[in-house]
Amino acid sequence: MALLASRSIFHMNHPSANWQTRFIQLATDAAGDDGAHDINHLHRVWHTAVTLLADYPEADALVVQAACYLHDLVNLPKNDPQRHLASRQAAELACRELGAMHFPADKLPALAHAIEAHSFSAAITPTTIEARIVQDADRLDALGAVGLARLFYIAGRMGSELAHPDDALGTQRELDDKRYALDHIAVKLATLPASMQTEAGRRLGQERLEWLYEFRGTFLQEWDGR
Amino acid sequence: MALLASRSIFHMNHPSANWQTRFIQLATDAAGDDGAHDINHLHRVWHTAVTLLADYPEADALVVQAACYLHDLVNLPKNDPQRHLASRQAAELACRELGAMHFPADKLPALAHAIEAHSFSAAITPTTIEARIVQDADRLDALGAVGLARLFYIAGRMGSELAHPDDALGTQRELDDKRYALDHIAVKLATLPASMQTEAGRRLGQERLEWLYEFRGTFLQEWDGR
Repeated sequence: MALLASRSIFHMNHPSANWQTRFIQLATDAAGDDGAHDINHLHRVWHTAVTLLADYPEADALVVQAACYLHDLVNLPKNDPQRHLASRQAAELACRELGAMHFPADKLPALAHAIEAHSFSAAITPTTIEARIVQDADRLDALGAVGLARLFYIAGRMGSELAHPDDALGTQRELDDKRYALDHIAVKLATLPASMQTEAGRRLGQERLEWLYEFRGTFLQEWDGR
Repeated sequence: MALLASRSIFHMNHPSANWQTRFIQLATDAAGDDGAHDINHLHRVWHTAVTLLADYPEADALVVQAACYLHDLVNLPKNDPQRHLASRQAAELACRELGAMHFPADKLPALAHAIEAHSFSAAITPTTIEARIVQDADRLDALGAVGLARLFYIAGRMGSELAHPDDALGTQRELDDKRYALDHIAVKLATLPASMQTEAGRRLGQERLEWLYEFRGTFLQEWDGR
């Protein structure tokens, strides 16, 4: 995917492959063993961002690429109370590391904003096109079939239950996506398409959400033994 | 689901609800925080077994019920080298506990066999109809939408990757389902329908495997960014 992504970008305002290699190196050095936030996630986010960039030739692709690869440089588990601070810490660390590598200094504020604003829990509104693209690309990776795999993968790491035993849809109770993995679709994923900042992001997000609803229908049939 | 299952069984050679309560208590006491092998899994396996039992009125439903609820009494992680011994240990523990509760002693050998033979890794051929039903019911829970959720949930606990970065289907490499969660479909799940011991199990297993293949197709499109 890294190769595919770098090929596509040469048709645009192509950041150098040399920088991409360095972003990947930085991200790989910081990676733990979380398969839902590994280098493959970063490649996918960058790859999706390339698709979104096609509609915004004015966007700075190097800033977008750096933010796609470095947005999880500091990543805290979903149930960590400090989680909303992680994106700010990732932005600071990315700027420090790239500053030392003589990344164009005038691009650092835009990079920091794109990284800070990507996070759902930080609740920062993206104000630049670069930040809007990165936020959408990251959110799209939480939807669809890959998003579904990540959802249950993360639930396994948190020790959640798959779903509520008798009321999996949560019609008679308060939803709780830390306790019940399936609740995450209603609590968070269902809200993502409307939060998308680009037209293509909204369309793709809606498609992937519909797919998740189809999955949930099949899951419920098996879960309730109908 | 527990209620549903106990209602259905009253149309058959119904084991007493009193025993079911005791099986559930034993299983709950032994449960850890693994949401893929929790009491909901046991309820589902028993519920599926009730469906399969409909074709075999000669089967001892109390033995099947006991085995459904107690088959994971000793449960070792997928990547534990002792895993193939867990079902024998579960059988011994179940017989010891139920013996102390004055469970009919003449049913204990059939119960022990059904528990021992349920396990894929133990590779014991089931020789009784009770063991065949329990094995099928447990394997059916590894397939379909619930099976998929369990697959990625377990992968999260093991710290696997979701899939191989460049060759997710494994056409150019050795499959490795401890390292790549998606490989588990080809390595194990695809083999389950043919291993089913009952006609209904085979049919349901095949349907759920087809669903998994559809999921995999969508996953691959997103994964490879096509």
